Amino acid sequence: MSRQLRLNAFLHDTGHHEASWRHPDSSVERIGDVTWWQGLARKAEEAKLDAVFLADGPAWWGTGHRPANQFEPITLLTALAAATERIGLIATASTTFYEPYNLARLFASLDQISGGRAGWNIVTTFSEEAAHNFGLDGVPSNEERYERAQEFVDVVDKLWDSWEDDAVLADRESGVHTLEGKVHRIDHRGTYLNVRGPFSAPRPPQGRPVHIQAGSSNHGRAFAARNAEAIFTAHQTLGDAQAFYADIKAQALSFGRNPREVLVLPGISPFIGDTPAEAEEKFRYFNELTVPEYGLKQLEGFAGVSLRHLDLDEPVPAELFGGAGNVLDNERSRKQVVANIVERENPTVRQLLHRLAGGRGHNVVHGTPVQVADTIQEWFEQGAADGFNVMPPLYPQLLDDFTSKVVPILQDRGLFRTEYDGTTLREHYGLPRPESQYATPLPAAANA
Amino acid sequence: MSRQLRLNAFLHDTGHHEASWRHPDSSVERIGDVTWWQGLARKAEEAKLDAVFLADGPAWWGTGHRPANQFEPITLLTALAAATERIGLIATASTTFYEPYNLARLFASLDQISGGRAGWNIVTTFSEEAAHNFGLDGVPSNEERYERAQEFVDVVDKLWDSWEDDAVLADRESGVHTLEGKVHRIDHRGTYLNVRGPFSAPRPPQGRPVHIQAGSSNHGRAFAARNAEAIFTAHQTLGDAQAFYADIKAQALSFGRNPREVLVLPGISPFIGDTPAEAEEKFRYFNELTVPEYGLKQLEGFAGVSLRHLDLDEPVPAELFGGAGNVLDNERSRKQVVANIVERENPTVRQLLHRLAGGRGHNVVHGTPVQVADTIQEWFEQGAADGFNVMPPLYPQLLDDFTSKVVPILQDRGLFRTEYDGTTLREHYGLPRPESQYATPLPAAANA
Repeated sequence: MSRQLRLNAFLHDTGHHEASWRHPDSSVERIGDVTWWQGLARKAEEAKLDAVFLADGPAWWGTGHRPANQFEPITLLTALAAATERIGLIATASTTFYEPYNLARLFASLDQISGGRAGWNIVTTFSEEAAHNFGLDGVPSNEERYERAQEFVDVVDKLWDSWEDDAVLADRESGVHTLEGKVHRIDHRGTYLNVRGPFSAPRPPQGRPVHIQAGSSNHGRAFAARNAEAIFTAHQTLGDAQAFYADIKAQALSFGRNPREVLVLPGISPFIGDTPAEAEEKFRYFNELTVPEYGLKQLEGFAGVSLRHLDLDEPVPAELFGGAGNVLDNERSRKQVVANIVERENPTVRQLLHRLAGGRGHNVVHGTPVQVADTIQEWFEQGAADGFNVMPPLYPQLLDDFTSKVVPILQDRGLFRTEYDGTTLREHYGLPRPESQYATPLPAAANA
Repeated sequence: MSRQLRLNAFLHDTGHHEASWRHPDSSVERIGDVTWWQGLARKAEEAKLDAVFLADGPAWWGTGHRPANQFEPITLLTALAAATERIGLIATASTTFYEPYNLARLFASLDQISGGRAGWNIVTTFSEEAAHNFGLDGVPSNEERYERAQEFVDVVDKLWDSWEDDAVLADRESGVHTLEGKVHRIDHRGTYLNVRGPFSAPRPPQGRPVHIQAGSSNHGRAFAARNAEAIFTAHQTLGDAQAFYADIKAQALSFGRNPREVLVLPGISPFIGDTPAEAEEKFRYFNELTVPEYGLKQLEGFAGVSLRHLDLDEPVPAELFGGAGNVLDNERSRKQVVANIVERENPTVRQLLHRLAGGRGHNVVHGTPVQVADTIQEWFEQGAADGFNVMPPLYPQLLDDFTSKVVPILQDRGLFRTEYDGTTLREHYGLPRPESQYATPLPAAANA
């Protein structure tokens, strides 16, 4: 079979457009109702998407201008697991603000409940608000966060591996349920973490839930190339995405990994219309709903500059973003995205805010179903993407547009599955199931 | 309506008898299958029980003689929430080994997903194995664990309270989704925890998931009397249970609480037969399946003495438990239970192991449905219990015996509901919904 696209639905309350909740057709009254989310997951599954994905941070984002996340993501995905059968379930969780033993249990349990559909989006959480909820006066440095993240992932993998796949015997006659010799302490003593193990439960169905990563800083890229099996990334242009793609695949190779087992999945937020004009009008309508005060605050958050003293209808001074190369590494990737937009498009402040309102730096496209499918195919075939994190501006309507109008075109072109071949997220993504690092060869007698 | 019994089903892999998995009819092959657990929860709901309950500790118990917990409890209960509509969902979680912000999110999310059915069994986790999984060389002292637990509960309550109940406006027209003045930082700076808040999400349906506690040490009792809305406890005799009940209610009163809002729910593990002889034979059969090596290890764990040098068929020397009053407070309650059995019954080692195999110190009863119902009614009416944590020795068969044979008797006697009146665990337990400690009076205009 030819190389296949991977497509996730990135769920995000009423939709990815920051003002989506204000849309007259928005489901803002239902976002606390788990059955509404279960309905979205079922729609994504009917379209044979690879996974649903939830972002997360352990803090309130401090604005009344949009809804807070009503749910913690691992529990929400567990409820979605109960309402679906095949689709992957990816939750974001922080290595900076969790204990690895607790987090390993939550993901293993989700994997078990879902029959092998769990994925972990590994983030280090750059948020002062989160730090203050965990006894810290500020966020640790980018370098320290990624050092801890590496140790954290190593510990969690060891815990998942600590029960060999054949550790459970359940022999009523002898009274031996578990072969104690096949359950291993991990005895991890490191810089940030000391964890003895073994894990509290048998190995989860996928061996290890799929490792996903979403940071694009230099530390983040190296971490991703070493650990991630899928990378969620944000690019505005084919060229930027190609450069990132090539860099990640080369770095993965340098870690001795198979580059095909490191999927690059940029975000794409599609406004779909039956004509280009209808699509553009949709995009324009959403932007009219934005609250500039909110957009400015968001922009300050990820670009690290103030724009509040500027007139909304004056051009953004290019020099405001000139220093992008000098800011902290962890902030650079998103700031660079904004700097590139400013340089390329010379927008007014209002135009820049609208440009970002749809996808917070992700690629917002508007066009007909064929145009959107063409963009996806181009990125997929021109070395920019192995698939996409689809970010509908409004749920469920613009997910429906995507699944009913764009997905069939991709299927007709032989780029996307019409049925699931497997049952696990690893199978959907074409990833191998890792062997336990503690696996022992069978004794000779068992082979006889 | 007259005072009503509260009845939970305490779920525990194949059943509460330690050798239940070896029973020819056990479901040991299915305990990793979430649909099996969902079936149990539905059976408990059909019988109108108040809640299902899961114990937990973040470690493997280190023996191959019985199954490990395949699931993390909060995620498992989330999957049970999706398969049920009314029954309460109570998970155990440790204040010693969790970050309060993370745990508050998990329980609030479970409460939201289930429509207000979550309960938190607050434990401090006395386990060296767990400590080693969280970077500690040993378990903090009983005093320190309960000090931290109090601070932890205060922080979690503040987080749940930090969004006033009417904080969400969702007004499309004005663009105001959340009233920022009704979302509060908690600014907690304490001995063990610094947490700024506010919480990441609106207040959960119950305001606060129900607070449950299961420790019976002196520190544990005081903590329970101050914080718990239900207490899970272990007693072998009516007299012991009455003394505990009276003490807890008096202590609750001394904290200014309504004693009726502190439910005392002892464990009861019933072997039910159509005749007394049949019930006793059932009990005997299970005990034949036990592995003495396992029982001895368990007994050492909670009684703090070695019995391995003794002949299984010699009487237990009473002096082995004579020091019960001198051991660490946190160990005393279970050791005292064992000491009382030894003094009262003068058992052989094997008899003692069988005595404990059914319920780890909880009350194991065997008898006809009427006899079991009589015991329940006696404890309920004689000041020993507000209800029970029912611990079937084998799932689902001995739960079925209880729900199909004992529950109807209790219903006929007017002691137990025949339909749910409410939808939340608070309503089932007859507990009020607490107001947010940050609630602000409505402005005059809103009252006009």
